[in-house]
Amino acid sequence: MAFSEAEQRAMARALELARRGPRSRNPQVGAVLLSPSGEVLAEGWHRGAGTPHAEVDALSHLEGDAARGATAVVTLEPCNHTGRTGPCAEALIAAGVARVVFALPDPGDVEGGGGERLHAAGVDVESGLLADEARALLEPWLTARTLGRPHVTVKWAQSLDGRAAAADGTSQWITGPLARADVHARRAQADAIVVGTGTLLADDPALTARDDAGLRPTQPVPVVIGRAQIPAGAAIRRHPHDVLHYPTRDLAAVLADLHDRGLHRVFVEGGPTLASAFLAAGLADRVLVYLAPTLLGGSRTALADIGVATISQQRRLAIEQIDRLGDDLLVVARPAPSAPEGGS
Amino acid sequence: MAFSEAEQRAMARALELARRGPRSRNPQVGAVLLSPSGEVLAEGWHRGAGTPHAEVDALSHLEGDAARGATAVVTLEPCNHTGRTGPCAEALIAAGVARVVFALPDPGDVEGGGGERLHAAGVDVESGLLADEARALLEPWLTARTLGRPHVTVKWAQSLDGRAAAADGTSQWITGPLARADVHARRAQADAIVVGTGTLLADDPALTARDDAGLRPTQPVPVVIGRAQIPAGAAIRRHPHDVLHYPTRDLAAVLADLHDRGLHRVFVEGGPTLASAFLAAGLADRVLVYLAPTLLGGSRTALADIGVATISQQRRLAIEQIDRLGDDLLVVARPAPSAPEGGS
Repeated sequence: MAFSEAEQRAMARALELARRGPRSRNPQVGAVLLSPSGEVLAEGWHRGAGTPHAEVDALSHLEGDAARGATAVVTLEPCNHTGRTGPCAEALIAAGVARVVFALPDPGDVEGGGGERLHAAGVDVESGLLADEARALLEPWLTARTLGRPHVTVKWAQSLDGRAAAADGTSQWITGPLARADVHARRAQADAIVVGTGTLLADDPALTARDDAGLRPTQPVPVVIGRAQIPAGAAIRRHPHDVLHYPTRDLAAVLADLHDRGLHRVFVEGGPTLASAFLAAGLADRVLVYLAPTLLGGSRTALADIGVATISQQRRLAIEQIDRLGDDLLVVARPAPSAPEGGS
Repeated sequence: MAFSEAEQRAMARALELARRGPRSRNPQVGAVLLSPSGEVLAEGWHRGAGTPHAEVDALSHLEGDAARGATAVVTLEPCNHTGRTGPCAEALIAAGVARVVFALPDPGDVEGGGGERLHAAGVDVESGLLADEARALLEPWLTARTLGRPHVTVKWAQSLDGRAAAADGTSQWITGPLARADVHARRAQADAIVVGTGTLLADDPALTARDDAGLRPTQPVPVVIGRAQIPAGAAIRRHPHDVLHYPTRDLAAVLADLHDRGLHRVFVEGGPTLASAFLAAGLADRVLVYLAPTLLGGSRTALADIGVATISQQRRLAIEQIDRLGDDLLVVARPAPSAPEGGS
């Protein structure tokens, strides 16, 4: 892999452009076309299903042969598939593009392979530029693409010793204002926010994303899982979006339906039973643990049974990030497939 | 407070000298005598009960009037008490010392007041220089002095979600080799290491402080609390020190006896029942939590009931330190008397 400085700048710009697109069933993609000498010829991004892909959007700004010999810098491998729009690989070949640089390969069986198609047509193809940044942007979409279900984040707050509440069930406030503000910011980035009926009945959460000014501009769809009824006066009924209620314990079926609705970023907020069920089912792609510097002891654990009968079944985590939020810690982690360190 | 550069250097040196002394019933104290121009005239430290205090040790190296007009820099307020040795305050006055700088006041009812005595005799007295460093060295002794009991550290290892073991009781290895090495290093700094009979019977711990070369040069005294018998073949019986066995649940009585034996640094290693009992009784001065990046769920919590019936009784902690030890985190904290942050 060798990328010019102009290509590196262009990929950073393409990622900015990608973020302008809507989060939806389709990936957020950006593209920048560079002249052979590295000048920006055109920019494009994808504006949602049925609209031109980023590469085609960028090409549309050029006339005649203006793209001949150009380099296309794209955040995702150009598609090789005729859907509602034609394959981008063909469009780039037809325009006479000489080189294509993309950040991430497209894992799709149908849509992938654009890089090979371009290479076969004599186009110089390189990938992997700013791949981590692109992956951070597209992770939920990649999960949906590869696993056929939404990306699931399971969040909980706990005392240092792993409790969600004191013996009598009281829990306000274990974590501080910065941790709670962080939760609201993350809610605003989710497509759906999920609670169990136990939490719904116990806490009557609004499940909105708020800040000091009130409701944030984007709101996740509130989702309730469990067989109990949602009370007529529940705060969740005043949510800007209609509530999706799944009276089931079949989490895979719930995720499949959310996936069909184009809800790819799912934020599971608990309570302990539901969070544990997602972990036990291997359906948590990321965990967010807000750790308060306090001890509670007792039986009100933040997680219940997660299916670990013996130590070899422990759910090891790969820590991605540890932040201090006021007095609290936020631990962001992914399930780690690897075995724990050995020891003596 | 205004201290010269020479005094600052002298206090750092006095702390080094203090560490040469034995950890025992008596505090580790160091002293440096400076000439009016800031040159070092003599050094001293306390070598244990019945031997000269640090100031007197330093004075003993000078002849005639050599200390007249000098500054004494001492890590602890000079005593005002005639025990097995005379009061240091009087010795300093008699030697003609013009100024005394000390790091920490002596909280003792009988021994304290040396600073006032010196001041009354016309000596210039200042305190607080490198007080934090001195407190770190003398914390166990200060606890013993002010509370009349040993300084207690309660240590446990847990999964991120607060479990000590999987459902079937298996727990090796939740934490990694660096965390375990850290435990051994801290054991070597303790005077006594305490377990409950439950842990003794379940794990058969050696309770020695080891490193790669085997047993470390200093070993804590092994202490067992609980009514069960110690099996004849228990590993703890091969410990370099004789086992102290207290067949009781009265932790205050155990600590009183350890205090009487001059064991001022007590390291409680569990299990969950004993750690929780120390916390519930308010007898933990510091907690060390080794957090492994893994989830276990289930009922094998690292702490049991610690007496928190409702959230207002939560045991807030002041975090002193968070270290990464390989994959693990070590959280060092003190109980915090303050209320949690408010919230909205």
